[in-house]
Amino acid sequence: MTKIVNDNQNKESSRVELFSDGVFAIAITLLVLELIQILHPESESKLLTTFLNHWQSFLAFFIGFTTILVCWINHHVAFESIHRVDTKFLWVNGFLLFIVTLTPFSTAVMAEYLQKESTIAVAIFGFNYILISFAANGICSYAYSHHLIQEEERVNYNSYRLIYRYAIYYTILAFFICFISTWISICLYLLLFALFAAPKELAIRLEKIRMKKKFKSTRKETEQERDSTNT
Amino acid sequence: MTKIVNDNQNKESSRVELFSDGVFAIAITLLVLELIQILHPESESKLLTTFLNHWQSFLAFFIGFTTILVCWINHHVAFESIHRVDTKFLWVNGFLLFIVTLTPFSTAVMAEYLQKESTIAVAIFGFNYILISFAANGICSYAYSHHLIQEEERVNYNSYRLIYRYAIYYTILAFFICFISTWISICLYLLLFALFAAPKELAIRLEKIRMKKKFKSTRKETEQERDSTNT
Amino acid sequence: MTKIVNDNQNKESSRVELFSDGVFAIAITLLVLELIQILHPESESKLLTTFLNHWQSFLAFFIGFTTILVCWINHHVAFESIHRVDTKFLWVNGFLLFIVTLTPFSTAVMAEYLQKESTIAVAIFGFNYILISFAANGICSYAYSHHLIQEEERVNYNSYRLIYRYAIYYTILAFFICFISTWISICLYLLLFALFAAPKELAIRLEKIRMKKKFKSTRKETEQERDSTNT
Amino acid sequence: MTKIVNDNQNKESSRVELFSDGVFAIAITLLVLELIQILHPESESKLLTTFLNHWQSFLAFFIGFTTILVCWINHHVAFESIHRVDTKFLWVNGFLLFIVTLTPFSTAVMAEYLQKESTIAVAIFGFNYILISFAANGICSYAYSHHLIQEEERVNYNSYRLIYRYAIYYTILAFFICFISTWISICLYLLLFALFAAPKELAIRLEKIRMKKKFKSTRKETEQERDSTNT
Repeated sequence: MTKIVNDNQNKESSRVELFSDGVFAIAITLLVLELIQILHPESESKLLTTFLNHWQSFLAFFIGFTTILVCWINHHVAFESIHRVDTKFLWVNGFLLFIVTLTPFSTAVMAEYLQKESTIAVAIFGFNYILISFAANGICSYAYSHHLIQEEERVNYNSYRLIYRYAIYYTILAFFICFISTWISICLYLLLFALFAAPKELAIRLEKIRMKKKFKSTRKETEQERDSTNT
Repeated sequence: MTKIVNDNQNKESSRVELFSDGVFAIAITLLVLELIQILHPESESKLLTTFLNHWQSFLAFFIGFTTILVCWINHHVAFESIHRVDTKFLWVNGFLLFIVTLTPFSTAVMAEYLQKESTIAVAIFGFNYILISFAANGICSYAYSHHLIQEEERVNYNSYRLIYRYAIYYTILAFFICFISTWISICLYLLLFALFAAPKELAIRLEKIRMKKKFKSTRKETEQERDSTNT
Repeated sequence: MTKIVNDNQNKESSRVELFSDGVFAIAITLLVLELIQILHPESESKLLTTFLNHWQSFLAFFIGFTTILVCWINHHVAFESIHRVDTKFLWVNGFLLFIVTLTPFSTAVMAEYLQKESTIAVAIFGFNYILISFAANGICSYAYSHHLIQEEERVNYNSYRLIYRYAIYYTILAFFICFISTWISICLYLLLFALFAAPKELAIRLEKIRMKKKFKSTRKETEQERDSTNT
Repeated sequence: MTKIVNDNQNKESSRVELFSDGVFAIAITLLVLELIQILHPESESKLLTTFLNHWQSFLAFFIGFTTILVCWINHHVAFESIHRVDTKFLWVNGFLLFIVTLTPFSTAVMAEYLQKESTIAVAIFGFNYILISFAANGICSYAYSHHLIQEEERVNYNSYRLIYRYAIYYTILAFFICFISTWISICLYLLLFALFAAPKELAIRLEKIRMKKKFKSTRKETEQERDSTNT
């Protein structure tokens, strides 16, 4: 009996992955439509000139693609240990998909307005990132607190929740920095990509740092205790 | 032998889910193309002005996304206990997919005509909802009456059928109200979202209400009986 | 050992289904883009007038959707008993997917040219059908002759091959009839939909007719024999 | 315990396939949008004239479709024996998906510029091929050297790595030849399709050639040895 329930639960959670994967795959591929757009102007300019004039479109395509791929990798890692879902979780996941679906729009904004109104264009993309990090944090926190994950994964999941909470602060900071300098802001986003390119490894590294700190502080305490007993 | 048949049946029904999920995922993601459209006018207006002038596009995107997500969640819940399919069921499901595929069109109508011809625009979207509720009711009724579901799920399924039948009346009512006031109609649709956001929970609540009524009426009857025996 | 091979084979064939389902789902959903197109003209006509002026777009959308859905149902039935694939089969299936991918184009041709150049528009759609029936026949014949199907399904598969061979003759006939009358041709296509809406049931019915014929002819032969022995 | 880990690993690697299949399926189907484009010009030319004037669009559609299908078949063969994935591999695979997503763009370039600036158009498509072969080689090399494949498949995988390394040299050569003659270059790409249409069979054939060479050289050596001992 329990077996059947488990199978059903796996079926359920795998269908959520299926649907999410579909949305990720389509959103990432639709980006190319914006790129194809640059080929249809009535102007009679040469192909390579057209390319050079639209370098922002290529940059936007690259950033948009990397954004959605990083999202998918993080989604993939988060769902690895989720083994059942409930209705509220479908809505938390639905919110993430909503933002992923919006990403081609933010990318198009960047492609068309990066030269004309760079601050606003980067700010809109940055706002997109804030929402993504909220959604990622939402998924991990909800799965953790509602026991949708395997019990043996709870410790790792705690680290995931932590890195996504830090991501919220980070993206909010980068959002406000873009009003000072768009290029610093873009560099911060590239660093964000690099960090979240491997969420598992990031979580492990963070855990080690925290352990070391804890270890140091406990050692300090013991030393202080020893010192106090010595004196 | 029976095992093999069962496996094949599961394979069959899971392929229907796969295809349906694909259609849902694409329809929900294509909505963004309509939103990107607002970025390409020849007019030289500022980005934020463009956004403000096209607030209906954002509203339509949000409503369209929520509509398809609610549909998918209900489809997901309905398919959880379906364990085999037949050819006619493929067509009943195909009708639902037809309406889902049409939804980006209704959304585009709303985005472009909500200001110019609000009544007609909302009426078209409302007609879309009537068709969706018919299709949802069709799927549940067919699966129930042709025993495509697990036997232990028949009681729950009966409640699903009931809520989708009520949904038909509801959406027809909301459709006609839009000719009186589009805003009341839109509010009714938002309430509909809220109700069908969690179809399982809705079915359980409805079942409880019906049980209580039954219980009350039977108690009344016993009381009346007792009264009559007392007198 | 054999178990592992079987599992791998199932994985292989299910990935082909996955990819094919993706292509079917996208092709069927892209049709709506052509429909959305009618909303963007610069003309200031009313919404309902726009709809009436583009009735061919709606008809084309309906026919295109039904075509791809019928294709998918037939693909679904054919793949139910395929349990392994080889490289050549991937190409036979790839040819079907090529035609499915082309179908939104034929649909768009019909939507835009049904009034202006009806004969050519229907002929192009008809040519699409001929290719589809060739591809369907190719898949069934290849799977049958290269033993990609379960042994117990060979009899049923033989019927499938037969109905798709008849479909080739039928679509070629309908193609040439469209040069005499486009409306007769369209009616023939609608009849084709009705026939192939349930390929399994069609194959069974055809098998029964053939059995009856065989039975009659054998009875006739026995009667003739009896007659000859009697005289 | 080990069983659970294995199941999880399979789930992981199958989700990568799922996502990749989605991207392949969408990229291959989006090609048709470029083809539909040719139907919307304001010019009042006849349908067949429109077709003849845009023969490059049909050629580009055919080449684009075949390119992505060949990619998918090779991806399919490579993933058959991959049974676990790690984070870096997700990025190697992500690079391939990036190129696949770009392919509809290269195809659109070819469709629009094959007549006007044929050399540049073919060069861009050829550059796309170089990147694809680098990505394919990357996937196979990484999976081989990081033991993501089943142990019994290592010999076959070695051949795959080899054919993709040769593919890199081949596509670089074809790229430079296109500056001499675009048609020779296109023929070379068609030959490339034919070779990689069946990667498994190609690898086996290559392996045989290498074995024969080895056998010959060892026989020669033994003969020389014998000769030297004889003299």
